[in-house]
Amino acid sequence: MIDEIEILRRLPALLPLNDRICAGAGDDCAVINMPGKYQLLAAADQVIEKIHFLPETPPRLVGRKLMNRNLSDIAAMGGTPLTALLTVAAGGKDSLWVEELVAGAAEAGQVFDVPVCGGDTAALPCDGAAASLTILGEVPAGTAVMRSGARAGDGVYVTGRIGNSFLSEHHLNFTPRLAEGAFLRPLASAMIDISDGLLLDAIRLADASNVSIMLYPDAVPLRQGAVAPGAFADGEDYELLFTSAHDVLRKKPENTAELTRIGQVVPREAAPVITPDHHPFTMGNSGYVHR
Amino acid sequence: MIDEIEILRRLPALLPLNDRICAGAGDDCAVINMPGKYQLLAAADQVIEKIHFLPETPPRLVGRKLMNRNLSDIAAMGGTPLTALLTVAAGGKDSLWVEELVAGAAEAGQVFDVPVCGGDTAALPCDGAAASLTILGEVPAGTAVMRSGARAGDGVYVTGRIGNSFLSEHHLNFTPRLAEGAFLRPLASAMIDISDGLLLDAIRLADASNVSIMLYPDAVPLRQGAVAPGAFADGEDYELLFTSAHDVLRKKPENTAELTRIGQVVPREAAPVITPDHHPFTMGNSGYVHR
Repeated sequence: MIDEIEILRRLPALLPLNDRICAGAGDDCAVINMPGKYQLLAAADQVIEKIHFLPETPPRLVGRKLMNRNLSDIAAMGGTPLTALLTVAAGGKDSLWVEELVAGAAEAGQVFDVPVCGGDTAALPCDGAAASLTILGEVPAGTAVMRSGARAGDGVYVTGRIGNSFLSEHHLNFTPRLAEGAFLRPLASAMIDISDGLLLDAIRLADASNVSIMLYPDAVPLRQGAVAPGAFADGEDYELLFTSAHDVLRKKPENTAELTRIGQVVPREAAPVITPDHHPFTMGNSGYVHR
Repeated sequence: MIDEIEILRRLPALLPLNDRICAGAGDDCAVINMPGKYQLLAAADQVIEKIHFLPETPPRLVGRKLMNRNLSDIAAMGGTPLTALLTVAAGGKDSLWVEELVAGAAEAGQVFDVPVCGGDTAALPCDGAAASLTILGEVPAGTAVMRSGARAGDGVYVTGRIGNSFLSEHHLNFTPRLAEGAFLRPLASAMIDISDGLLLDAIRLADASNVSIMLYPDAVPLRQGAVAPGAFADGEDYELLFTSAHDVLRKKPENTAELTRIGQVVPREAAPVITPDHHPFTMGNSGYVHR
């Protein structure tokens, strides 16, 4: 059995970058310097049968989820998505299953004018399926919102609502927060999309910025059916968690998702995420970790 | 069981493009218009255990092969590779196996200053492995060498030698023809990398260009151990097949692979690839088709 967390810890040493890569695998997207006034964003993610979807999940929804997960990574950088490449390896399926998956990804991309421009399909000689999607996007040079920019005094915010993503099937039907990411690009100091649970992704943002995040647990807006504190670890929310020194609530455009202030950035303490009375903000399990 | 050929035939209708995509999945790479004086190249390919490599193949060689296959697609457009994203799904393996695969891809990329800038690893809940790599590259705008540019009267050429790739382990140890692709960019009218066999890839080039290719079978340079006509369908050669109106043999730089003229482009006949006496050039099996 592979240990993804352990691999993630060891991989950076195996993956030297060069000066074309402004930020590597440590953020929602890699940021790539291009000859011109913008930068390219790139991220790759996969969905695996029995882990990210069930054998009975309609393949069209699987494709849609895969595209939307990746679009969410572009949103988390404040970027504009451009195009995607998709590979599918499937065993014990027919051609129609693969085509439905591809069609679902293509449809989800079309909502944001993001065509699937390339890829590959292959048989997997065991009973299962893995689909991998690479998303490309762009931002004006130097404007991508990284995880590392939070400063003490910034407010901490989320888009939408948190928790109960699986039972509510939000994880199959969410809208990637591209409009919100674009509006927040000049306003947010740091941003991440919430895929592995509010708490774990808040820890990542705090660690990347070398600050602590004080969370107001009662302020976190919950999705219907979600129960705190479990909701803070549910994962697959695909909302944006961000920090800002601006009054983002007053500047919010009308047609974007609700924004809620859920905390503030403070100078680094021992724990990356803390309660309002400065205790470490922990749960038995501080986030949903994909096996 | 999925039928890749059938899927490939039906996918274009599922994948509408937009005006940012200059060429989609029908060529070695997609060509993406960028605001500036160049275009982005992008391609995604995967390797699957028991299809593209054996369970006992060292994972470092698997990673290397995957990177080099994708670099070969950049070479076939005359492009300069930029960076890559890699996802791995592995069942019945340990973390070291995954890390070795990633390290193999990263090492092969480093030879051409191509860092792996992002990706994902996940457990596959069945006994097997699939790794998917997306390669990005660039070319000055309008200079990418497509499959569709061959004109009657052009010569037909290959780099290197053809056939016997599996037994010789060429498929694990080849050098992607990036130097040759770059030298040929201003000279070649059409180009493709030979992954599925000389004959099948010649058919693709001829069909894309709406010409026929007259092949001189005795002129095809064979790798040691290769036997014609089987060698024309062996596949996994990762050489460049191209057409040109120029005297490319005289212009070839010293430090690049051998070039051999193996035919000429003629006006379209009934068959896409023909013998010197204008018979259809066929074999029982006209190319190695990956199952």
